[in-house]
Amino acid sequence: MPKVSERGTLMPASPIRRLAPLASEAKERGINVFYLNIGQPDLPTPPEGLEALRRIDRTVLEYSPSDGLLSLRCKLKEYYHRFNIDVDVDDIIVTAGGSEAVLFAFLACLDPGDEIIVPEPAYANYMAFAISAGAKIITVPSTIDDGFSLPPVEKFEELITPRTKGILICNPNNPTGYLYTMKEMLQIRDLVKKYDLFLFSDEVYREFCYTGAPYISAFHLPGVEEQVVLIDSVSKRYNECGIRIGALITKHPELKKNIMKFCQARLSPPLLGQIVAEASIDTSPGYMLETYNEYVERRKFLIDQLNKIPGCYTPIPMGAFYTVVKLPVDDADRFCEWCLRDFNLNGDTIFMAPASGFYTSSGMGHDEVRMAYVLKKEDLARAMKVLAAALQAYPGRTI
Amino acid sequence: MPKVSERGTLMPASPIRRLAPLASEAKERGINVFYLNIGQPDLPTPPEGLEALRRIDRTVLEYSPSDGLLSLRCKLKEYYHRFNIDVDVDDIIVTAGGSEAVLFAFLACLDPGDEIIVPEPAYANYMAFAISAGAKIITVPSTIDDGFSLPPVEKFEELITPRTKGILICNPNNPTGYLYTMKEMLQIRDLVKKYDLFLFSDEVYREFCYTGAPYISAFHLPGVEEQVVLIDSVSKRYNECGIRIGALITKHPELKKNIMKFCQARLSPPLLGQIVAEASIDTSPGYMLETYNEYVERRKFLIDQLNKIPGCYTPIPMGAFYTVVKLPVDDADRFCEWCLRDFNLNGDTIFMAPASGFYTSSGMGHDEVRMAYVLKKEDLARAMKVLAAALQAYPGRTI
Repeated sequence: MPKVSERGTLMPASPIRRLAPLASEAKERGINVFYLNIGQPDLPTPPEGLEALRRIDRTVLEYSPSDGLLSLRCKLKEYYHRFNIDVDVDDIIVTAGGSEAVLFAFLACLDPGDEIIVPEPAYANYMAFAISAGAKIITVPSTIDDGFSLPPVEKFEELITPRTKGILICNPNNPTGYLYTMKEMLQIRDLVKKYDLFLFSDEVYREFCYTGAPYISAFHLPGVEEQVVLIDSVSKRYNECGIRIGALITKHPELKKNIMKFCQARLSPPLLGQIVAEASIDTSPGYMLETYNEYVERRKFLIDQLNKIPGCYTPIPMGAFYTVVKLPVDDADRFCEWCLRDFNLNGDTIFMAPASGFYTSSGMGHDEVRMAYVLKKEDLARAMKVLAAALQAYPGRTI
Repeated sequence: MPKVSERGTLMPASPIRRLAPLASEAKERGINVFYLNIGQPDLPTPPEGLEALRRIDRTVLEYSPSDGLLSLRCKLKEYYHRFNIDVDVDDIIVTAGGSEAVLFAFLACLDPGDEIIVPEPAYANYMAFAISAGAKIITVPSTIDDGFSLPPVEKFEELITPRTKGILICNPNNPTGYLYTMKEMLQIRDLVKKYDLFLFSDEVYREFCYTGAPYISAFHLPGVEEQVVLIDSVSKRYNECGIRIGALITKHPELKKNIMKFCQARLSPPLLGQIVAEASIDTSPGYMLETYNEYVERRKFLIDQLNKIPGCYTPIPMGAFYTVVKLPVDDADRFCEWCLRDFNLNGDTIFMAPASGFYTSSGMGHDEVRMAYVLKKEDLARAMKVLAAALQAYPGRTI
């Protein structure tokens, strides 16, 4: 039998995927599992999007242009302008979700052996896409004790080599919920300017900032406009993860051409998703506010509950809908597994994402988990009861 | 400004893309352009697929599983059984079109520097996906004079190196319409068996075989079941290119696991497309027969017309909906450009795909074009009138 690629064997083994079968088994035993592990919100897709879907009246579902429907790209331009992101229709390329945007950004910017620097903990799939492109992710650790703020800029500089092609940030951050300050953003700007790097900026959670401070996009940073590669997606903001529509935005003329070659090779982004996405952008301010308020409330509730549990600690996430929590356990991977396999409280248990999956530095985050507050408050309340009880019963507890 | 990847600059420059702006300009001048250059059929999507789209009654358009909806994979299994392709649900992974299936097959099987051997002329995007994966496509030329039959197996053997990981065939073939015989398929089988290679088999045109002989899938070849990597798509058979649903099928246990890592990184294939695809598989035999008969008729008409034009020659394509045509011109790229820029017959002109885009061997196919018979017979008739007149007027004609 021929051998598979080594590249595939290098792909990160996500602890969530290792635990998923245990969650299924728990359900088969009649246990109710609260899924705090994934970013699949339980909120509805905008009625405008669903209505557009029902109204589709075509007899042939044909290819759309490789860079996406012009009407969607025009609508996205308007949308970005609302956030003072000044981009042209020609700067916007529609992709199959934020995932394809990351992959194409890496393929078009990086050659095998090239490096990008990423603060960790970080979204695990950046690593997967870097490996797909043969590139290397070099991580700079941020810590829960510092509230996951940007590590000192010297730490980045120490890691820069002739193969460094870019810095990647996710802002608001998955998994930490951290929101970079203007001061931090300017430090990053100075760095990419000084070393002539790409700044990959994943901003798919921009609607979910809870500090009241103005939202900062990488495109707001003066002097690096052509170095920014913005990664976007409609999945989270409109609760339509399944339609697979994202975007890649750049003002770098050569990069646009390079990205388009990868877009043309895969012919077209999904037509039906584009129709839904375009209509969703027109959803009412009421819909967006309701979603926002829901997360504000869930966030306050979850964080308060967590920090009340003896030995638990989480900094207040300022954006997105995740938080990283330090738990009084010997090993968070083992604890998450134990919750699914060996524990329940009146028939309830919880599925959390061990934070080890978001770090590459060995040992980092060994007592941390990520939780997504994508469940109703009542469910979060029951989940927190499970957590408190589990921490009292777990044999590997440290307090 | 940071430099883009060299990988991107290596991506093949498709002559179709170079000519596309000329076609747009012709249209702006009021010229009617017949698009013989692309595989976007003008036939309707099955009513069952469109009906399923209208019936979607979900409030959240959420992620589907990374390997696709179970109901679609079960339906695909049934579908393959109709063609005596004996695969299990677990062997089937749903992808974003055949394009993603090719990309993931390459990423999961090939490491940078690995090689696959492909008979040419070949679908240009195989090259693009190989470059994305850092792998090399090595071509074995087939010729119009031999009707694009499989080159002698010794020609393949001469090219095998320690880096050769697979052979790729497209059957029925795009761009030639060639259909491999059982004898040829067994030769390929013997080769992949002898050298322990993957056999990548792109079979997206399986419905469109016009010889009356039984359809041969790579999965029909005994003894290499675990070496076959089947690439499929619903785009062409149900005229729904825009929904972006394909599949990757393998019985190789390690390869399945490897492919799934790339699938999980991109989270999910398009949900809405999967719903349409699943319903389309249940379309009536009447729909399939009507589509088939339409292509049979167009094919006969186009081939007869082409071979009637002095100096033109095309072998009879036995499958798919393309044919490669030898033209009495100095340079097909120049001729195609001239048709769009400088010629029209009573306001009509034609857009053909120069065959140079399907060959990597320099000079091959310089007087050949690919035509897709995806237009109504009346349109094909007008297009052929344009071609005959253009060949009389073209300054670079060779007869």
